[in-house]
Amino acid sequence: MQDENQRYMGYALREAQRAMDIGEVPIGCVIVSDGQIVGKAHNQRELLQDPTAHAEILAITQAAAHFQSWRLEGAKLYVTLEPCAMCAGAIILARIAEVYFGAYDPKAGVCGSLMNLLEDSRFNHNPKLYPGLLADECGALLSGFFRRIREDASQHPKPGPHRN
Amino acid sequence: MQDENQRYMGYALREAQRAMDIGEVPIGCVIVSDGQIVGKAHNQRELLQDPTAHAEILAITQAAAHFQSWRLEGAKLYVTLEPCAMCAGAIILARIAEVYFGAYDPKAGVCGSLMNLLEDSRFNHNPKLYPGLLADECGALLSGFFRRIREDASQHPKPGPHRN
Repeated sequence: MQDENQRYMGYALREAQRAMDIGEVPIGCVIVSDGQIVGKAHNQRELLQDPTAHAEILAITQAAAHFQSWRLEGAKLYVTLEPCAMCAGAIILARIAEVYFGAYDPKAGVCGSLMNLLEDSRFNHNPKLYPGLLADECGALLSGFFRRIREDASQHPKPGPHRN
Repeated sequence: MQDENQRYMGYALREAQRAMDIGEVPIGCVIVSDGQIVGKAHNQRELLQDPTAHAEILAITQAAAHFQSWRLEGAKLYVTLEPCAMCAGAIILARIAEVYFGAYDPKAGVCGSLMNLLEDSRFNHNPKLYPGLLADECGALLSGFFRRIREDASQHPKPGPHRN
């Protein structure tokens, strides 16, 4: 039986699938507060041609609009891939209480891979961190996407999207 | 005589002044490409109630819209305060070539103070970093703002804005 956290990561995975459907690197994020989803987004960097349009940033902006407040104290964030420096920084600034991520990102992740910004006590806020939630499903979506990109590239050489 | 970099930091200072005028922590940013200003913004966190609305993020999104591209290769970013983790991450993601900042931020700066993300070679891009440009002017604007906040608070106690 799925627990509540798996269920929310499931919603983040659906968002990641939506990114995949439009040719974006499949990463999704939901933000939950008091059992209600208050932010839900997928990576839209290529669509918007905006380097800040990661799933987490879009979901945080949505949640802040929902509360009319930049302080998301008590909120839980679920994201399918380990956050990068930009997104980890935004999570700290928003005072998010708990962060659940799926797959590790050994190239750009800063919540355990390259470093751990969320647990660095020099920052004025430290969310609780829960890595590896539905890691296999989250990772499979990403590796399937990049495998297809490589296959397409070998047949029709042209630059494709990449995560960072 | 002012050099070109001081002139651009002067524009960032004007943006910071605009933030001050509306009661925001006075931080400003401009992005320059081929001698043209392609992004110009000030901190709007309180106005927008958005934790991601730092001057750098807003200016990067503007510059990307200008170029219709998330890749700001060759661009120079001028910001009055040392970038935080979110903004340093966005600068790396956007492939910005050169970063000039004014005052150091010992509490949340990650471009020399707490750490140095921009010069961490494990990331796939490292901008050239020029700290301390017009540091006195940039710092004076911030310290004047916080001094006034403290004076107001001692006369009319209520929560005021703070940087992070």
